[in-house]
Amino acid sequence: MIVVMEPTATKEQVNAIIERVEAVGCKTHPIIGAERTVIGVIGDGRVIDARQIGRMIGVETVMPISKPYKGASREFKPQDTIIQVGNVTIGGKELVMMAGPCSVEGRSQLLEVAHACKEAGAHILRGGAYKPRSSPYSFQGLGEEGLRYLAEAREATGMPVITEVMEPALVPLVCDYADILQVGARNMQNYALLNAIGKSGHPVLLKRSFSGTIEEWLMSAEYILSHGNNNVMLCERGIRANETETRNTLDISAVPVIKHLSHLPIIVDPSHATGKWEYVGATSKAAVAAGADGVILEVHPKPDEAWSDGRQSLKPEKYAALVQEMRAVALAVGRSVPSNQTTIGQNGHGKRPLLVPTP
Amino acid sequence: MIVVMEPTATKEQVNAIIERVEAVGCKTHPIIGAERTVIGVIGDGRVIDARQIGRMIGVETVMPISKPYKGASREFKPQDTIIQVGNVTIGGKELVMMAGPCSVEGRSQLLEVAHACKEAGAHILRGGAYKPRSSPYSFQGLGEEGLRYLAEAREATGMPVITEVMEPALVPLVCDYADILQVGARNMQNYALLNAIGKSGHPVLLKRSFSGTIEEWLMSAEYILSHGNNNVMLCERGIRANETETRNTLDISAVPVIKHLSHLPIIVDPSHATGKWEYVGATSKAAVAAGADGVILEVHPKPDEAWSDGRQSLKPEKYAALVQEMRAVALAVGRSVPSNQTTIGQNGHGKRPLLVPTP
Amino acid sequence: MIVVMEPTATKEQVNAIIERVEAVGCKTHPIIGAERTVIGVIGDGRVIDARQIGRMIGVETVMPISKPYKGASREFKPQDTIIQVGNVTIGGKELVMMAGPCSVEGRSQLLEVAHACKEAGAHILRGGAYKPRSSPYSFQGLGEEGLRYLAEAREATGMPVITEVMEPALVPLVCDYADILQVGARNMQNYALLNAIGKSGHPVLLKRSFSGTIEEWLMSAEYILSHGNNNVMLCERGIRANETETRNTLDISAVPVIKHLSHLPIIVDPSHATGKWEYVGATSKAAVAAGADGVILEVHPKPDEAWSDGRQSLKPEKYAALVQEMRAVALAVGRSVPSNQTTIGQNGHGKRPLLVPTP
Amino acid sequence: MIVVMEPTATKEQVNAIIERVEAVGCKTHPIIGAERTVIGVIGDGRVIDARQIGRMIGVETVMPISKPYKGASREFKPQDTIIQVGNVTIGGKELVMMAGPCSVEGRSQLLEVAHACKEAGAHILRGGAYKPRSSPYSFQGLGEEGLRYLAEAREATGMPVITEVMEPALVPLVCDYADILQVGARNMQNYALLNAIGKSGHPVLLKRSFSGTIEEWLMSAEYILSHGNNNVMLCERGIRANETETRNTLDISAVPVIKHLSHLPIIVDPSHATGKWEYVGATSKAAVAAGADGVILEVHPKPDEAWSDGRQSLKPEKYAALVQEMRAVALAVGRSVPSNQTTIGQNGHGKRPLLVPTP
Repeated sequence: MIVVMEPTATKEQVNAIIERVEAVGCKTHPIIGAERTVIGVIGDGRVIDARQIGRMIGVETVMPISKPYKGASREFKPQDTIIQVGNVTIGGKELVMMAGPCSVEGRSQLLEVAHACKEAGAHILRGGAYKPRSSPYSFQGLGEEGLRYLAEAREATGMPVITEVMEPALVPLVCDYADILQVGARNMQNYALLNAIGKSGHPVLLKRSFSGTIEEWLMSAEYILSHGNNNVMLCERGIRANETETRNTLDISAVPVIKHLSHLPIIVDPSHATGKWEYVGATSKAAVAAGADGVILEVHPKPDEAWSDGRQSLKPEKYAALVQEMRAVALAVGRSVPSNQTTIGQNGHGKRPLLVPTP
Repeated sequence: MIVVMEPTATKEQVNAIIERVEAVGCKTHPIIGAERTVIGVIGDGRVIDARQIGRMIGVETVMPISKPYKGASREFKPQDTIIQVGNVTIGGKELVMMAGPCSVEGRSQLLEVAHACKEAGAHILRGGAYKPRSSPYSFQGLGEEGLRYLAEAREATGMPVITEVMEPALVPLVCDYADILQVGARNMQNYALLNAIGKSGHPVLLKRSFSGTIEEWLMSAEYILSHGNNNVMLCERGIRANETETRNTLDISAVPVIKHLSHLPIIVDPSHATGKWEYVGATSKAAVAAGADGVILEVHPKPDEAWSDGRQSLKPEKYAALVQEMRAVALAVGRSVPSNQTTIGQNGHGKRPLLVPTP
Repeated sequence: MIVVMEPTATKEQVNAIIERVEAVGCKTHPIIGAERTVIGVIGDGRVIDARQIGRMIGVETVMPISKPYKGASREFKPQDTIIQVGNVTIGGKELVMMAGPCSVEGRSQLLEVAHACKEAGAHILRGGAYKPRSSPYSFQGLGEEGLRYLAEAREATGMPVITEVMEPALVPLVCDYADILQVGARNMQNYALLNAIGKSGHPVLLKRSFSGTIEEWLMSAEYILSHGNNNVMLCERGIRANETETRNTLDISAVPVIKHLSHLPIIVDPSHATGKWEYVGATSKAAVAAGADGVILEVHPKPDEAWSDGRQSLKPEKYAALVQEMRAVALAVGRSVPSNQTTIGQNGHGKRPLLVPTP
Repeated sequence: MIVVMEPTATKEQVNAIIERVEAVGCKTHPIIGAERTVIGVIGDGRVIDARQIGRMIGVETVMPISKPYKGASREFKPQDTIIQVGNVTIGGKELVMMAGPCSVEGRSQLLEVAHACKEAGAHILRGGAYKPRSSPYSFQGLGEEGLRYLAEAREATGMPVITEVMEPALVPLVCDYADILQVGARNMQNYALLNAIGKSGHPVLLKRSFSGTIEEWLMSAEYILSHGNNNVMLCERGIRANETETRNTLDISAVPVIKHLSHLPIIVDPSHATGKWEYVGATSKAAVAAGADGVILEVHPKPDEAWSDGRQSLKPEKYAALVQEMRAVALAVGRSVPSNQTTIGQNGHGKRPLLVPTP
């Protein structure tokens, strides 16, 4: 930690910093410059709160040198985290394809989409039973009924399912039905929810918030990891910037940045990032080329009748073609998109895929 | 609602929109232009989901004409909402001064600050018992112990207290101790929390999220209002933009915008908006001049020893001077900052201020 | 300057930095921590390019300690810069009111507005002869004809005039007609233009760019100052953020930040910041309360017939009332809005106000 | 154009809009809703300024239906624009690789880099002779001396060169030396510069500004096109958002968006977008996968000694490997990266590549 004092800071103020820092066992190296004094602090950054020091009188700014996250960092765990969900492996050389409707609208709709997604090559079925909606008057999802349809679709297709959970009290229920929990962008810093998921040990896909920095995102992952739940995947779904032609701005650089800073798998969600199916193909291929561990997409047989987000949904035939295109790009960058015949359903249809968390 | 079709939209696609919209009782006015067709839709916008229509095949974009919020809008309720908390009136001609430490650090610290804030002219005591921290390793607040100290400080000073609540399960407990609940920026779209608060009927201060639009913010207020809880105050606390000299960017225009679009009181939080006490004075006075109904500030006797956010805290003597300056600005714009001797404590120290929700 | 090495940096890489830095006469203080090495550099930051060092192999990041601007900084010149334009003093205790139409649309329109603004209390007349328009097909301004009308309006009212200049080649021409040059947001980093204005010595109002940081803005001022032209005013006109209800987001904190970091006067432009006349009054008063040295506003007798930006223009009678309101706020914060009878026109109508640059 | 009136708009205000619009030959379709009136306007949107109408009294907002750009739109010119620079074809099925140092630092440095880039597979040599620097005290480029070295490097390698021009007065000089002009992000809306380049007819690479929308960017292209200069390439180089781990945020979606809205070629600049060489490889491959027509990269033999932006520069051997990787991705998406032996130098080394503008 580097503490930069104001030009007008007094000797007493400098000493106050030094005392405070040394009191918790750190060493200090004051550097007295022409205009101001700078104090280098050596020791475990986690015993001192940089913000707390940084806001002492006479301090202009503080630069933390150590990253604030630990368990999520690649320095802490150099090898990639690999998460096993049923027969699907996430985070290795093989990419995972997640697909399905934005909302679970009904039993037959979901089964139809699920079969179509499987035929198209998807490994994991997505679908929202609880929907975060900006309006209290909008459709909020089918709730547990939707969860039951998801479980039924898993039985029918052998695909593990992922679905969003929005409040701590519902974590056990959603764990009962889903193979992977999803934390939406609005809840990235809903700490009570993160703690409940951490305690559950269940695999989770943590979406980045609308204006969250990568550091904040990894700190939210740290909340889950700190409970011993290592089955965390990150999901880049677009952030807010000035552009209005797309719903959000896909931060494609987040893929190599996460790979550099962390060992956690990173999935990209081009549907929410762009908000328009026209742009989903190009950005999905870009995600694969950039090194993403998977791509999650919205697929709907009749996008114009979808109850939510139809504009960003692909028809199954378009999705099937896109999976082939992503496969070609994956091969070009030394990865692969495995056939879903070899990765799923081996343990028999109608049987829930085993959760095998990595140690 | 205006539906703009793509230049290549077919007659069938146009008809599909018309049928869908008329099926729910709305009227349509198609306008066939040189390049594309536009459909004007007349009827209650709340029976159709603009996003759902907007994402049908052949649709380029949809422009909602009605605002998506209803109960929060000034069209729905032209007169200002006035919220009574004990003897303090919020939202009328008189401004409310809220002050206190970022975190409740201990019993004696809180009592000292509380008395200092009261002497300085504050009407309401703020203090965090549950702290949202980006790191799981940071101090997370004293929890219920902190709530007890807040209640004790209320007894001692007669000031109502405001404190943050972060999860639905804790709403009843926090209601037991606090006069006003606070929803932090990270939780603006934590719908389970908003619903729980809506059901509680308790006064609440709803902070704007880091990158939330004013419309999204009002929609979050709508979640609370839709349960019949009309005691909602909004709080502008700075949004994220490019500037780094301040912690966030105070959106001062939000004050007149909220006054124009809504009847709800608007409070400004210059401490979190700027993150530096040097800039708190100027922005507090700006908030008053812009028409805010109150200002919430962090005050700490020893900012350099504060456990969180000391850099943005004012010393009590600086705060006392600032209250006088805000009072002068309030008078210049036809408002006033009432003495806290006349507004609080009339019902006797040691007695909890009555909650008198407006009908 | 603090140089933070990567955890994997070699001793050779650390030494390479030290050699490079010491070669230009700076001293170094390496601090060897548990995870990485940090090098404190003492000396004139302006002899080394922080970015250049920061991008050497093995360097993770560089934190400049000295500010990159010098002439614009308050450390360099503690007392406020006061700019005299004719009989109008900018930057002192008295505030300056600038007003006029967005565009000069014609001779009679401009004279009418000019007289109305003067009656309302304005000190300086604004009006665009060269208009930066995002479309090449939009009205681009009357050019030199517009400049002549501005000069005529100055003759008629005694008010100095401010107008935008967009390219280096036109600086001499615009200097011939206008008392203050304006650099628009799009040209904040048009260095050829800044250099030409710097050489002219003419008073200039430098607008902040759409997403410019305060540091970049001050660096652009530094371009002008570095030529010996000290007559620089800064103008906050709103930056880009997520909010769409206003055209831009007025960064009100920029006022105290500029006052803290620099000695240059700061003017606020609520018309462009909000884009809607409804919000101009509240934000103008906020600017005065925050400590701005002046407010520039768009005034048009018939906003609905204005050739550009009519929606954000005030009618003269509204402007006159607002000047009185700003005057009341100014008094509340220990400043004043002087009568324009005492400040302008003393040197006789028909005579160009003298430019008296401060030394 | 759709004009949405305020709920309180009077019949007279509605009629005023209708008269104004019909006066220029457009037809109107008023739609009277429960809450407010909406006016559909049919006719050439370019004869009315939407902003002007939109700011008339009683108008709440205006939604332009036609795009404001014409020459840049795909509706106007459905087939892709192909630009021929010497023997290099830009905008077709083959991708173009542009590479070189950020700044031209000297004759031998440039020749060394140029040869290395050519060997690595680049088609076009980049290098800055005029550098836009935020500080007036930073190295501003070698100027015309740098241009001469670029011309010499072209002689020596047969590669056409691209370099930035920053002011209108220098356009003729830079055209004399360079095959492609570059407009930097800071100058995207420097209209005098765009006009001068438009008149020159010279090929130009137009970078997107820091916070420019895609519509504004296309409008800036329209400035150049409106002079009959059709040799316009667009360059996405990252925009400003909240993330700080990368220098800017690469808007990868801009690639398919530009392809959808416009016929102009789009080049991606991962060096400036990310600011760190570690992230350049992944984002370059993403750009190719997303459909970019080319990639421009910074290459420097000794990045740690570079005078500017060394941190984001690749060493030649890394660049050579990356070209091969991009080639593999290009093939996976049905494009190709041609050998530079077949595309350049055919007209003989030492001879300036012919400029063959497309009609």
